[in-house]
Amino acid sequence: MPQTTVTARALMALVTEIFQRGGLSQQHAEALGRAIVAGERDNCKSHGVYRIEGCLRTVKAGKVAPDAVPALDDTAGAILRVDAKGGFSNAAFELGAPALAARARELGMAALVINDCVHFAALWPEIEMLTDMGLAAMAMCPSYASVAPTGGTAPLMGTNPFAFGWPRPDGAPYVFDFATSVAARGEIELHRRAGKPLPEGWALDKDGVPTTDPEAALNGAMLPFGAHKGSAISTMIELLAGVMIGDLTSPEALDLLGTTTLAPKHGELILAFDPARFAAGRGDPLARAETLFEAIAGQGARLPSQRRFAARAETERNGITLTEAEMALMEKLRDQGLEAVDLV
Amino acid sequence: MPQTTVTARALMALVTEIFQRGGLSQQHAEALGRAIVAGERDNCKSHGVYRIEGCLRTVKAGKVAPDAVPALDDTAGAILRVDAKGGFSNAAFELGAPALAARARELGMAALVINDCVHFAALWPEIEMLTDMGLAAMAMCPSYASVAPTGGTAPLMGTNPFAFGWPRPDGAPYVFDFATSVAARGEIELHRRAGKPLPEGWALDKDGVPTTDPEAALNGAMLPFGAHKGSAISTMIELLAGVMIGDLTSPEALDLLGTTTLAPKHGELILAFDPARFAAGRGDPLARAETLFEAIAGQGARLPSQRRFAARAETERNGITLTEAEMALMEKLRDQGLEAVDLV
Repeated sequence: MPQTTVTARALMALVTEIFQRGGLSQQHAEALGRAIVAGERDNCKSHGVYRIEGCLRTVKAGKVAPDAVPALDDTAGAILRVDAKGGFSNAAFELGAPALAARARELGMAALVINDCVHFAALWPEIEMLTDMGLAAMAMCPSYASVAPTGGTAPLMGTNPFAFGWPRPDGAPYVFDFATSVAARGEIELHRRAGKPLPEGWALDKDGVPTTDPEAALNGAMLPFGAHKGSAISTMIELLAGVMIGDLTSPEALDLLGTTTLAPKHGELILAFDPARFAAGRGDPLARAETLFEAIAGQGARLPSQRRFAARAETERNGITLTEAEMALMEKLRDQGLEAVDLV
Repeated sequence: MPQTTVTARALMALVTEIFQRGGLSQQHAEALGRAIVAGERDNCKSHGVYRIEGCLRTVKAGKVAPDAVPALDDTAGAILRVDAKGGFSNAAFELGAPALAARARELGMAALVINDCVHFAALWPEIEMLTDMGLAAMAMCPSYASVAPTGGTAPLMGTNPFAFGWPRPDGAPYVFDFATSVAARGEIELHRRAGKPLPEGWALDKDGVPTTDPEAALNGAMLPFGAHKGSAISTMIELLAGVMIGDLTSPEALDLLGTTTLAPKHGELILAFDPARFAAGRGDPLARAETLFEAIAGQGARLPSQRRFAARAETERNGITLTEAEMALMEKLRDQGLEAVDLV
C-alpha cells in the first residue's frame, strides 16, 4: 500500500482545517485535532484519521453542536462540572482539566463531571493529560447499548470504557484504557470479513443464545469481559457515569440517537487523585510505584500501553506514516467539507 | 451433619465473648463480631465463624495489636484518614465511616484511608454501611502476593478485592465485592481435596507454566480474572490502596509476615460519592438506577449479592443455622481462649 510520512504538526494543521471546513468552531476543531493526531502518533488507528469522517457525519446529521462553548462550574466542593452544551467532549475536558487538577491538589481528590457531550474519543489522552500534571486519574463513560449483562440475553450496557493512569517521573505514565466488553465491535466485524468464527464467550445471537457466528453476533449482543465481574464493573459505569452525574445511560443514548453510526451523546466522569496528599509523608508513592512496575516487567509481563508508547517514540523520531488512501480522504474532506460525507 | 439454630443476637454475644476472652478490647471484639455475624447472617461462610480462629491465631502470633485505639485525622480536605495502629481494620472503618459520609455530603465526594491495619474481612459490610447512609461507595485493598500479572510467571499481586455499592430506596443495595483473581485460593483448595483438575486459565505452576493441577497451582501463582484487563485493575489497586496511601503492597505484606496463614497487615481505600450532589438536579439518580436494575433483572440476569440478600431474609426470619462442629469450636475458643489456638 503506497504510504506517505507527515509530521505531527502538519497532520494537526490538516485535521484542524478539515474540522473547521466541516463547520466546527476553532476550539472544537483544535481539540478534536489533538485527539486524532494523538491516535495516529501512537499508531492507535482505531482512534486516528479513521474517526474524522464519523465526527463530520455526526455534524452533518445535526447530532452535535459544532460551535458549542463549554462552560465550567466549579462551585460544588470536590465536584467540578463542565456543561458541554451538546458539543464534542474533547474541548469540554480541556476546559475542565486544569481546574480538576487544581482542586485535586487542594482537596487531595476531585471529580470532573462532563454533561451533555458527544463522545468519540479514547479516554487515554485525557488520562495522560492528568498524569502529565502529576496526578493519578480514573475515567469512565457509558456508550451505546450493545452488551448484554452476564446471564442476560439482549444489548443493555455499552462497551463502557474504564481507564486509569499513574504518573511516572521518567517517561510515559502507567495507563490502561479498555472496553468492559470482552471484545470491541470492530474485532467482531474483522472476524466477519475474514470469515472466521468468534472465540466462545464473545457474543450472543438475537435470541440471546451464545454464538460464534460474527454475523449473528452483530445482530445480537456482545458479552462483558471477565464474566459476572466485568458485567458488574460495566453496571457500575452506567451508575456512576450515567445516572449519578445526571446524564444518559447506554440504553438511553441509543434510544436518543436510534443508530450506532453516529457519535453518542452522554456524559463522562473523571476522578483525579494527588498521590502526595494521599501518602501524607508515608513514603514516596512515585518511587514505590516504580518498584512495583519493575517487579511486573521483571517477570516478563507487559505494562499496559507499552505498544502505544513504543509507536510514539518511533513517530516522534520518524514522523507519522499514513496510507495514500488516508491522505486522499483527508484532502477530499478538506476540499469538499460536509458535501463529501455520506449520512450512511 | 447435626445442626443448631441461633439468633443473630445470641451469635453476636458469643463471638464477642470469644474475642474478648482472646485478648481483644471491647471495641475490636464487637467490630469483629459484627463482621462475623454479618457473614453468617448472609450465609457467606467464607467470612463467618470459620474466620474466628484465624483472627485469634493472628493475635496469638503477636501480629495484631489487640487493644489498638484507632485514631481519626480529618484535616486533609477530601481525604479522611484512620490510623488503625496495628489493630484490626473493622473498628478503624467503623470510626471513619460517619466522618467519611459527612465529608462526602459536604464536598460531594470523599476518601477514607485506613493505614496500618490487619485485614481479614470482606469489603461488602463496609460498602453496605455507606449505602445505608444513601451514598455510593467503592472500596479496594491489596492482600498477599499470590497472583501473577498476566504474561508473568510468579506471585506478585494479591487477590485484591474490588467492591462497589449503590443505595436502593427499597430494600437491599446494589453491591458487588469480588477478588481480582480468577478464583479464590479456597476454590483451588476445594479442587485439590476433590481430586478435580482446575479449569484452564486459573493458575500457573512454580515455574510459571499454566497448570490445571491444584497442587501445582497452590505452589505456583493464581491468575487475574479477565486476563490483561483484570491484571490492570489489580495493579491499580496496588497503586491506589497500597503505594498511594503510604501502605504496604501485596508483595510487601507477604514479606513482612512471611506466611499466608495469618491475617495480612496493609491499608485500605474507600471512596464515597453523594449521588444527589453529583446529579445536581439532573434527574433523580436513585429512581433512574432502579430503571437500570429492572432492565438487567428483566432479561433474566442476576444482580450481584442476590444470593446473600436471600439468605439474609431467611436467617432474619428463622435464625442462623450452624453445625454442631462450629458450635463446639466456638465454645472451646470461649472457654480456653488462645490456649485452644494452634500457631500452625
